[in-house]
Amino acid sequence: MASYIEVDVKKLGDFVTEVFKKLNVDEEGARVIADVLIEADKRGVESHGVARLKRYVDGIKNGVMIPDAKPTIEKETPVSIVANGNGGLGQVITYEITKKCIEKAKKNYMCFAVIRNSNHYGIAGYYPLMALKEGLIGISMTNTFPLVVPTFGKNALIGTNPIAVGVPADKNPDFLLDMATSTVPRGKLEVYARKGEKIPKVWATDENGVPTDDPQRVLDNLKERRGGGLLPLGGGEELTGGHKGYGLGMIVEIFTGIFSGGSFGPFVYGKKGQPADVCHFVGIINPDAFIGLDKIKEGMDKLQDTMKNSEKAAGKNRIYIAGEKEYELELKYKDRVPVQDKVYATMEEIAREVGVNFDIK
Amino acid sequence: MASYIEVDVKKLGDFVTEVFKKLNVDEEGARVIADVLIEADKRGVESHGVARLKRYVDGIKNGVMIPDAKPTIEKETPVSIVANGNGGLGQVITYEITKKCIEKAKKNYMCFAVIRNSNHYGIAGYYPLMALKEGLIGISMTNTFPLVVPTFGKNALIGTNPIAVGVPADKNPDFLLDMATSTVPRGKLEVYARKGEKIPKVWATDENGVPTDDPQRVLDNLKERRGGGLLPLGGGEELTGGHKGYGLGMIVEIFTGIFSGGSFGPFVYGKKGQPADVCHFVGIINPDAFIGLDKIKEGMDKLQDTMKNSEKAAGKNRIYIAGEKEYELELKYKDRVPVQDKVYATMEEIAREVGVNFDIK
Repeated sequence: MASYIEVDVKKLGDFVTEVFKKLNVDEEGARVIADVLIEADKRGVESHGVARLKRYVDGIKNGVMIPDAKPTIEKETPVSIVANGNGGLGQVITYEITKKCIEKAKKNYMCFAVIRNSNHYGIAGYYPLMALKEGLIGISMTNTFPLVVPTFGKNALIGTNPIAVGVPADKNPDFLLDMATSTVPRGKLEVYARKGEKIPKVWATDENGVPTDDPQRVLDNLKERRGGGLLPLGGGEELTGGHKGYGLGMIVEIFTGIFSGGSFGPFVYGKKGQPADVCHFVGIINPDAFIGLDKIKEGMDKLQDTMKNSEKAAGKNRIYIAGEKEYELELKYKDRVPVQDKVYATMEEIAREVGVNFDIK
Repeated sequence: MASYIEVDVKKLGDFVTEVFKKLNVDEEGARVIADVLIEADKRGVESHGVARLKRYVDGIKNGVMIPDAKPTIEKETPVSIVANGNGGLGQVITYEITKKCIEKAKKNYMCFAVIRNSNHYGIAGYYPLMALKEGLIGISMTNTFPLVVPTFGKNALIGTNPIAVGVPADKNPDFLLDMATSTVPRGKLEVYARKGEKIPKVWATDENGVPTDDPQRVLDNLKERRGGGLLPLGGGEELTGGHKGYGLGMIVEIFTGIFSGGSFGPFVYGKKGQPADVCHFVGIINPDAFIGLDKIKEGMDKLQDTMKNSEKAAGKNRIYIAGEKEYELELKYKDRVPVQDKVYATMEEIAREVGVNFDIK
């Protein structure tokens, strides 16, 4: 089992900001990346937190991520934006476009933005969270490195392609669904492989495209691109609904890569040493387009209470609402957050490498 | 096995239209309902085709569906509509609002409509198909009778809540995902129960909320509301992604019932002998909001070809695109469509009952 070191959230934020500043990201951009990464750790989504710092540092060094790139708007209507991320850091690019989208939605009831030529943007839920803070409804999707096989296909051609949707509630925590459209992310296979445990047969396929319970085999195959990969939500067969997860993954490729004129499917991260052309979608809806914020909040409370107060299945003691677990963790980790000792050590190394002070406890 | 009778599509349309006219639906409305139902049969979605005719006839007779109701618009912005279906037939209500939404999207780049106080609207894919015919992107969702349990819950509190998304392609058939957010619809359990076969354990739960392989038990429990029901896409456990299907089902309740100020979850069909207060969502997006129709069509062809031409998994010989199977059936059943003999007999009965001529062969 991994052991954890508790660190100070503010100090961690300052440290991550300084790292990115050293790598030629401007002050505001560096703050944004730090905030998106640490938000993930606070919400218990370790895989998308500061554990990723090394990959961003390497991405900038390898020329995949352009540290000082800002988005340019290539097309704009009162309710939409088509943006070019210019190979920049996904968080910096998407934060700025989401801000613009929020302004438009406040004025014109909604705004949908598509962004091409960007990079990994952190947790998909961060951008709906920006909307929620303003009393708006938020949607975000992104395509990713292709790890998922289409139903009946042998090769990983689709990203894990998360969909995030946030809707404000009143007394209850805001609703925030943030889900990969694969059954599980790759990180989950790594956890099982480390423990030497078998995986459920709806998670992944082997090099022949056949569902397997051997996580290490899948990870090795993915690394060597020998075939196989993660399965869409619902698994490998129509019988278990796998074609639906595949369809949802396609929707994300369409709303991000196709609508923006960028890359999709196997073409994302398609050229070594060049920007990855990851594409994002951000949708902001003003509650005034529908019955208004107060009534929506009231309805959301009633919906959530109805689910949570209903009878539990045998052996279960709680029914959750999307985003609730993460919200509770965020309260708990408001000031101090645990990071894996391995991640802590990597950060210490990065500090030395880029030449910033390391004091995050 | 069911045996089938082939009927003439045009004659069937005229017959269904005449039935609804006799039941006090106006000519245009009756045509629309007939078209939505028969479109389902042509696309191979028998459960939503003329097999439903009896339920509509009964719905009108029982006062659950108001045959001459038209939608009224309660709120309108340049890009949104909030409508009251006034207890009318879902197809009539949603067709009219979708037409208005299409006009708005042509002018203002997009339009999202929410509709409350409606009824079963047929296949969710029909309304995106209307958008596709105009070179637009279409989305539709509806809540339904509560048949699905929340993750870790005992009782069926959420609808099967389909999501449909249509995006135009050029040489390939248009992309059309039309999926319930449960692993399977109730009809699938009926098929297995009739054959005396067991069901996969990600389909449904028993009266204690525990996954079961006994379809008859689930159907009986649902009928008596004894607990249990269909499982969300992904099954009953977080391990297999069930919380994601549950989250998607909630999204549909929110976008339909909450945003419209109508009923949601267990409150849909909540009052016997009264309108069901089914709620819908329709979204139309003009491709000009993004990179434009021609480039989107080109991208869609490339995406589809990439999937379809990729290597197949062992034992599989074809990779499908959402909507492709249905499109091929629609071509096949353009003029003549098979209906189950049982359904044929029921239609004959209805013809006698309401007093219209029955000649559909």
